[in-house]
Amino acid sequence: MLIVMSYNAGEEEIDAVVKAVEEMGYKAKPIPGGERTAIGVLGNTGYVDDVIIRDLPGVQEVIHVSKPYKLVSRAFHPQSSIINVCGVEIGEGCRPVVAAGPCAVESEEQIVKTALAVKAAGADLLRGGAFKPRTGPHTFQGLREEGLRLLALAGKESGLPIVTEVMSPESVGIVAEYADLLQVGARNMQNFDLLREVGRIEKPVLLKRGMSATIEEFLAAAEYILAEGNPNVILCERGIRTFETATRNTLDLSVVPLIKELSHLPIMVDPSHATGKRSLVPPMSKAALVAGAHGILVEVHPEPEKALSDGPQSLTFQGFDKLMEEVRKLNQFLGYGAEKDA
Amino acid sequence: MLIVMSYNAGEEEIDAVVKAVEEMGYKAKPIPGGERTAIGVLGNTGYVDDVIIRDLPGVQEVIHVSKPYKLVSRAFHPQSSIINVCGVEIGEGCRPVVAAGPCAVESEEQIVKTALAVKAAGADLLRGGAFKPRTGPHTFQGLREEGLRLLALAGKESGLPIVTEVMSPESVGIVAEYADLLQVGARNMQNFDLLREVGRIEKPVLLKRGMSATIEEFLAAAEYILAEGNPNVILCERGIRTFETATRNTLDLSVVPLIKELSHLPIMVDPSHATGKRSLVPPMSKAALVAGAHGILVEVHPEPEKALSDGPQSLTFQGFDKLMEEVRKLNQFLGYGAEKDA
Amino acid sequence: MLIVMSYNAGEEEIDAVVKAVEEMGYKAKPIPGGERTAIGVLGNTGYVDDVIIRDLPGVQEVIHVSKPYKLVSRAFHPQSSIINVCGVEIGEGCRPVVAAGPCAVESEEQIVKTALAVKAAGADLLRGGAFKPRTGPHTFQGLREEGLRLLALAGKESGLPIVTEVMSPESVGIVAEYADLLQVGARNMQNFDLLREVGRIEKPVLLKRGMSATIEEFLAAAEYILAEGNPNVILCERGIRTFETATRNTLDLSVVPLIKELSHLPIMVDPSHATGKRSLVPPMSKAALVAGAHGILVEVHPEPEKALSDGPQSLTFQGFDKLMEEVRKLNQFLGYGAEKDA
Amino acid sequence: MLIVMSYNAGEEEIDAVVKAVEEMGYKAKPIPGGERTAIGVLGNTGYVDDVIIRDLPGVQEVIHVSKPYKLVSRAFHPQSSIINVCGVEIGEGCRPVVAAGPCAVESEEQIVKTALAVKAAGADLLRGGAFKPRTGPHTFQGLREEGLRLLALAGKESGLPIVTEVMSPESVGIVAEYADLLQVGARNMQNFDLLREVGRIEKPVLLKRGMSATIEEFLAAAEYILAEGNPNVILCERGIRTFETATRNTLDLSVVPLIKELSHLPIMVDPSHATGKRSLVPPMSKAALVAGAHGILVEVHPEPEKALSDGPQSLTFQGFDKLMEEVRKLNQFLGYGAEKDA
Repeated sequence: MLIVMSYNAGEEEIDAVVKAVEEMGYKAKPIPGGERTAIGVLGNTGYVDDVIIRDLPGVQEVIHVSKPYKLVSRAFHPQSSIINVCGVEIGEGCRPVVAAGPCAVESEEQIVKTALAVKAAGADLLRGGAFKPRTGPHTFQGLREEGLRLLALAGKESGLPIVTEVMSPESVGIVAEYADLLQVGARNMQNFDLLREVGRIEKPVLLKRGMSATIEEFLAAAEYILAEGNPNVILCERGIRTFETATRNTLDLSVVPLIKELSHLPIMVDPSHATGKRSLVPPMSKAALVAGAHGILVEVHPEPEKALSDGPQSLTFQGFDKLMEEVRKLNQFLGYGAEKDA
Repeated sequence: MLIVMSYNAGEEEIDAVVKAVEEMGYKAKPIPGGERTAIGVLGNTGYVDDVIIRDLPGVQEVIHVSKPYKLVSRAFHPQSSIINVCGVEIGEGCRPVVAAGPCAVESEEQIVKTALAVKAAGADLLRGGAFKPRTGPHTFQGLREEGLRLLALAGKESGLPIVTEVMSPESVGIVAEYADLLQVGARNMQNFDLLREVGRIEKPVLLKRGMSATIEEFLAAAEYILAEGNPNVILCERGIRTFETATRNTLDLSVVPLIKELSHLPIMVDPSHATGKRSLVPPMSKAALVAGAHGILVEVHPEPEKALSDGPQSLTFQGFDKLMEEVRKLNQFLGYGAEKDA
Repeated sequence: MLIVMSYNAGEEEIDAVVKAVEEMGYKAKPIPGGERTAIGVLGNTGYVDDVIIRDLPGVQEVIHVSKPYKLVSRAFHPQSSIINVCGVEIGEGCRPVVAAGPCAVESEEQIVKTALAVKAAGADLLRGGAFKPRTGPHTFQGLREEGLRLLALAGKESGLPIVTEVMSPESVGIVAEYADLLQVGARNMQNFDLLREVGRIEKPVLLKRGMSATIEEFLAAAEYILAEGNPNVILCERGIRTFETATRNTLDLSVVPLIKELSHLPIMVDPSHATGKRSLVPPMSKAALVAGAHGILVEVHPEPEKALSDGPQSLTFQGFDKLMEEVRKLNQFLGYGAEKDA
Repeated sequence: MLIVMSYNAGEEEIDAVVKAVEEMGYKAKPIPGGERTAIGVLGNTGYVDDVIIRDLPGVQEVIHVSKPYKLVSRAFHPQSSIINVCGVEIGEGCRPVVAAGPCAVESEEQIVKTALAVKAAGADLLRGGAFKPRTGPHTFQGLREEGLRLLALAGKESGLPIVTEVMSPESVGIVAEYADLLQVGARNMQNFDLLREVGRIEKPVLLKRGMSATIEEFLAAAEYILAEGNPNVILCERGIRTFETATRNTLDLSVVPLIKELSHLPIMVDPSHATGKRSLVPPMSKAALVAGAHGILVEVHPEPEKALSDGPQSLTFQGFDKLMEEVRKLNQFLGYGAEKDA
């Protein structure tokens, strides 16, 4: 930690800061600069809470060198983590995976049909929402428990592990009964009670980045889960909110290689929610894979024009077949076996 | 609702859209334009879910004229709502209120001392966090139930109603036992299960705007609470996330008069979290009141330099006294009696 | 300047950084921390270009303690600057000024009529655009030189100094012939050739904040003007671009007290462009003044519904009269004489 | 154009709007809706200026169906444009090009050495800045005319066409004398006088997207150039400004396929400025190509650690060689001949 004093801070103020640092159990080392003095804090072995310091007279700024997360960092855990979802391995060195399915589970026919279609096309996981977060209360909110049951049925029929969203701490139990991978959605990335709760189970968690979350906050949210004892976290970039409205969100693809530098956790990409436009999903899926993503989440619906949510960003079965064909070739180019079972 | 067709959409595509609209039970009225055709949807009495339409061939854009909220809108409920918190009235026409107190409840001495001080200075409500949302898991998370008890004690000793944050659906019950006004924080503005749960109680709710929530999403979040039956919602602007990092957030003060046009609910402002800097709190508090806010939330701490969270944005007792003196004069200037009990 | 080394940087890398700093003529002081070493740079008397350092092996981050501006900073020039525009004084301690007029000069009748009306209502300066920056090339671009002539005429008839925008270095001469205060618009805040050119004249300059400019960039842009020799710069907050589209821009009012801490230059506010909505202009004008702004810019048009640009945010004469009445009372409350010539 | 009336607008107000539309020479068609009336505007053949309408009593919103650009749109010009820069073809169907070189021209040795190195590695164009836009006035501003001369020399020695930035209308002439492709930088994307000036020359222009420019504004800026008669415009995405500070900007890669839908102009990507980090440049370069970009701009410097600007984002010669090898393979995979002269 570095404490920057204001340009007109006197010796007395500098001494007071030094004393406060020492009372916290650390060493303080003043560094007189051209215009102002800075004070280095030594002896800490992790993040130092700066609340006492920031407010002393003459202090201009407190700069943290350590980060608010540790367990998720590559510095702490240099080896890349591979997360196993019912036999599907996700992480560095593994062939990138594809999770596909409708935004929302709507009926047995819809979800089973989709599961079989995406399985046939080569998907690794089945995605589908049973609990749906929606901006307003007057729109379709998901089939809830019934949706979970149908999703599990479709998973069984297709042989695909299933991933679905959990929206509150008290439903972690019921969702974990059915799901193979529990998704924490963007709106809940800082629902800390929910993070702690999924940290107490053993099943893997897919944590989506919040709409306006920095990388540091994203990793600190994952830290909540690991801190409770669950190391099986997969991160997912799904677009951030910016001034641009031509796409639903702004896909921040540069975080893929960046997160791989900062953390050992796998990182997937959701081009469907990020762009909100069907025609942009295939190019951004491929861009994500080339940028190094460990997998993608793609919305697929038997009849997108009749979908109860997010129709415009869902691929048709035919569109998904075509995408998977391109993904297979791309994976082969990137050095992964073309076929899952090859 | 207006459906804009792409410039090269043919008659067949237009007819298909008309048919789909009619199947939904509405009337469709094609409006041929200079470059493309638009189709007006008539006969709806509220928000129309557009998922079937958006995806038909030839559809370029669907424009909603109705909003995803209704109960909170001034169009639906023209008269301004006054929310009563244990005798303190909040809303249009009432003297703006001041809720003051520490970011977090830390000890009995700290909270009681602060309660008596802010009461003496003229505050109307006591604020303090028992459950604290924090970016990382390794920092102080609040005293929880013990914090609620201490807060209630301080409320009793000072005679001030208390406002505190509730972070999950399952703790609504316990928080409602102690609190007079339940706060839903910015990070939980779209925690829909929590919104529904506070919608089922009778106590008033202070709903803070999410860090990257639009006004429309903010009002739609309030709609969740009203839709469950609780009409006692107070909105609170607390700064949004932008590219600017010189302040903690960007206080979006223009929403105060704007929300007063769009909704009948009261709107308060939190200049402490918005700016993150003690020196900016007094000028922005006064600016909020002049802009028409129905109240402000101000962080006050007996020893800000020792606060366990948000010290740099907390006022000292002396600073708060000075602010309240200015607020009293300003309220008098704005036409409200200077004294609460005048 | 502080150089933060990565957690696994070895002694050799630290030594190389120390050597590089010394070759630049400064002293380097390594500060070993709990997790990593930081290196303080001493002996500099201003901003240090970090390009050589940032890229050395083992360097994680370079943190600047000094700022990229100096002449505009309060640290360098503690006394507040008062800018005199033809006898109208703008700055700390002076009664806040009001610049009013149409977005664009459209005709002699329009501008003269408006000038007389805003003068009668109590405005201090006449604003009006002769050169208009417009998003697309197919809309009205201003009357250009003819507009300047008409604006000067209206200034003369009303006795008001005039402020108008200059859009390119080569038109600084012609604009300076007519204008009393030259405005550099938000889109040109980093048009450095233009900044240098207005830095070489003697007339005062009103520098608007760029749509996505940080405070640091805003002040660094002003530094360009002062560095060329023109100390007469007035800053102007006019709203920044954020995700929120309910208002035209997001008025970042907190920068008013913040800039007063960081710089000695006066700061004005333009609530018309910031909000884009007529009904929001009066409340935000008053909020700006209470927050400490040294003046406001308000769009006024004889017939806003016929304005060739920005009609929806322009006040009518009647609306402006009403606002000025409120402004006068507010100024009196704030301790300034109610009347300009009192 | 569609005019949405407020929910309580009466017949009189609707009639007034209809009349105003008709006075503008268009037809108006009222469409009574469930909650409010909308009025369609017919008969226009392009963008309609809405200033008269927006401000009439009872008007809530004016929605444009037509866009503020036309010449750049694919609707108007369905066939993709191929821009020829001294024999290098850029656009749909052509092998993606690579422009490489230092951020700033620093010396004859530096630029010639770099030119020969990037040519040997397979680059198609040489980039380098002679006029440099810098945040503050106290940092290196470029070698200016001398830089142009050196750049041209390096272009000649290496046989590569050169691309360099022009910062003001009056220097368009001198830059066009030397450059084969004139770059308009992000900060000048709405410097309309500059856009017009490069619209009057015949040489091709590389237009970078502004830091906070929407796609619509970006295309409207290009429209300025085409409207003056120069059809040779290449667009360039270089990252937008968001709340995220972990990267220098946020690379908005989704605009690549989106712009290809909206416009016939080629679109390139600058991963160096977008990310600001050397390690992110190769993955994002490849992601850009897979997303469909017509080329990339990459910063390369013989000794990045000594670069006078943007060192941390520049590749070394060795790093660039490695990237080009990967790019060649990727281009081959994407169906383009691996070798330029193959």
